[in-house]
Amino acid sequence: LVSRLPQVGTTIFSVMSALAAQCGAVNLGQGFPDFDCDSALLDAVGQAMRAGHNQYAPMAGVPALRQAVATKIEATHARPYCPEAEITITAGATQAILTAILAIVHPGDEVIVLDPCYDSYVPNIALAGGVAVRVPLTPGTFRPDFDKISAAITPRTRAIIINSPHNPSATTWSEGDMRQLQDLLAPTDTLLISDEVYEHMVFDGATHQSAARFDGLAARAFIVSSFGKTFHVTGWKVGTVAAPAPLMAEFRKVHQFNVFSVNTPMQHGLAHYLQDPAPYLQLSAFYQAKRNLFRQGLEGSRLRLLPATGTYFQCVDISAVSDLSEADFCQWLTREVGVAAIPLSAFYGDGFDQRVVRFCFAKQDDTLRAAIERLRKL
Amino acid sequence: LVSRLPQVGTTIFSVMSALAAQCGAVNLGQGFPDFDCDSALLDAVGQAMRAGHNQYAPMAGVPALRQAVATKIEATHARPYCPEAEITITAGATQAILTAILAIVHPGDEVIVLDPCYDSYVPNIALAGGVAVRVPLTPGTFRPDFDKISAAITPRTRAIIINSPHNPSATTWSEGDMRQLQDLLAPTDTLLISDEVYEHMVFDGATHQSAARFDGLAARAFIVSSFGKTFHVTGWKVGTVAAPAPLMAEFRKVHQFNVFSVNTPMQHGLAHYLQDPAPYLQLSAFYQAKRNLFRQGLEGSRLRLLPATGTYFQCVDISAVSDLSEADFCQWLTREVGVAAIPLSAFYGDGFDQRVVRFCFAKQDDTLRAAIERLRKL
Ligand SMILES: CSCCC(=O)C(=O)O
Ligand SMILES: CSCCC(=O)C(=O)O
Repeated sequence: LVSRLPQVGTTIFSVMSALAAQCGAVNLGQGFPDFDCDSALLDAVGQAMRAGHNQYAPMAGVPALRQAVATKIEATHARPYCPEAEITITAGATQAILTAILAIVHPGDEVIVLDPCYDSYVPNIALAGGVAVRVPLTPGTFRPDFDKISAAITPRTRAIIINSPHNPSATTWSEGDMRQLQDLLAPTDTLLISDEVYEHMVFDGATHQSAARFDGLAARAFIVSSFGKTFHVTGWKVGTVAAPAPLMAEFRKVHQFNVFSVNTPMQHGLAHYLQDPAPYLQLSAFYQAKRNLFRQGLEGSRLRLLPATGTYFQCVDISAVSDLSEADFCQWLTREVGVAAIPLSAFYGDGFDQRVVRFCFAKQDDTLRAAIERLRKL
Repeated sequence: LVSRLPQVGTTIFSVMSALAAQCGAVNLGQGFPDFDCDSALLDAVGQAMRAGHNQYAPMAGVPALRQAVATKIEATHARPYCPEAEITITAGATQAILTAILAIVHPGDEVIVLDPCYDSYVPNIALAGGVAVRVPLTPGTFRPDFDKISAAITPRTRAIIINSPHNPSATTWSEGDMRQLQDLLAPTDTLLISDEVYEHMVFDGATHQSAARFDGLAARAFIVSSFGKTFHVTGWKVGTVAAPAPLMAEFRKVHQFNVFSVNTPMQHGLAHYLQDPAPYLQLSAFYQAKRNLFRQGLEGSRLRLLPATGTYFQCVDISAVSDLSEADFCQWLTREVGVAAIPLSAFYGDGFDQRVVRFCFAKQDDTLRAAIERLRKL
């Protein structure tokens, strides 16, 4: 058997979570909350199950949920999407991104990704028979280099994948960044996959610059989001895609033959829960407090904190603490210090090591304090 | 935008369910129960949510559920599978089949399907860059023609997909059929995808002949099943795959970058519920009674009943009733008679029309009686 994905092993997230469990370490590696979601959301799902919503949902999603998603996008990013033709509910954002790629990438097509990037993108492109073209973000700042992006576009470029707020760097794109991308793509027919799963985690008063806010981007974009991240239920695997109708038609052709439809009672529960915008509108403040707690705890330690303007991640430079590679440091930190982290090198095609690791602060304050106590000893 | 799936429209199941809803017809088209699942299963999921099982499950599935699946397979088909390395939980059987195909089919590889077949298989093969080779089952009886299958195997054949109990024909493969397939594949390195989602619906005392029962098949097989079908929760989208470890390793490489993991509370609920084998052991008797009710109701009508030895489907020959094509007949039946059905032509690559349509009898007895009353007037 010849592998379709010869370079691929088990994701770093599974590896580090397993190691953390084995060592009894505080797990700040894989990104997920260690606290419960709102019990009102559980009630809503329970009621949906009891009401008999347990058979196939419509292929594109429960209508009430698609409507709620369209309402939310219009309220937050001022763009109307048609729930019938332009919104689809997915089994999480990862499934959404693979499905979009399979729908638009033909064998030999090029897709631009910006390194470091989430570890599913490049294998997704390979599965579609496409060629991933990795353009680095600027080392140190993780800023997009629009000259490099522009230079990477060829007649074979089918799409570019962007991700802001950005995993793993915790940086965000400004309005100016989005406009530059829009201008750069304007003369091309490059499609856009905009991974915005951390859209409701932007800090210090900033506004999330969704691709939905830019006509020239929205017209060519699959915009992907995730209820798992927004409502503290990463295990429910419910995400969303918004795209113009012609793109969505192709998306759904693949979606119906991938998962067909998504968990029905969860969809009904989420539709009900979305009637109140407070939970997602308050999420940035909620996570900003955790970010601040974590950063303040590490101030004065020998871990150098990088700026963190979005996501539930905090990156730190380890060069004053250790000579180990990022990957070895994360192994050592988990085993010997009792805190799991993720090496940024895992997000680079060439394993580029800039001596930076990522912590997830989507944790109870006590969990963060326990980790801080251990990390301050470094 | 050039479509990756130019031949594909919306699945016949979505089309007919929408039409049935629009016409207020009794929906015997798309296969799903119109009754509730066991409330004990809902309780188990509710408890899992309340216990905080709402974050990412392990990529391959919740360990207790994988163990329960291995135990079930060993109890029913006498084959041990290793829960760690050989069982994976999927977002339904459709996702399992696409994932298996993406994992093993390289561009240009051939995959044999037996027409009529479930409508996702051929688009799945196309998405992997493979070539579907359609071998017809014998018209009228839907028996496999092993000479034809044998003749279709070439050096480019990567896999064959089989499905027993068979959707749409409601036929089942005997032990002898499985042995013939085993003998035929023995000198080849053709892999097997065995879609066994109706494994717990076999009638008249027969035993489901899982590929797991045949060493020469199990060694090359992805065996796919579905809790949605078995526990009356088609909307939960939880399925399973069992395969030898080397095949499963390749499967998981793709799975982790498709859905990553599957709904956590549902997995915990199912793990708990599977401790009692009675619900799945009694399912064949449960559906046999519904099959008998439906068949008896149509006896003496002008619809000719075909044999139905498995699944929750009943096929009927319409040639004494109508000159319409199967597809037009189903439209007419839904609109004018008030009963939705599925044309078998939708399962053939060439739209072959043998004047047979499929009804789903996974319905409350009263629903079946209402449909019978309308159908007897034909
Ligand atoms: C799907 S497990 C990975 C979770 C995550 O998004 C991350 O840790 O980056
Ligand atoms: C995924 S909708 C189709 C359900 C089904 O398996 C069928 O009706 O054949």
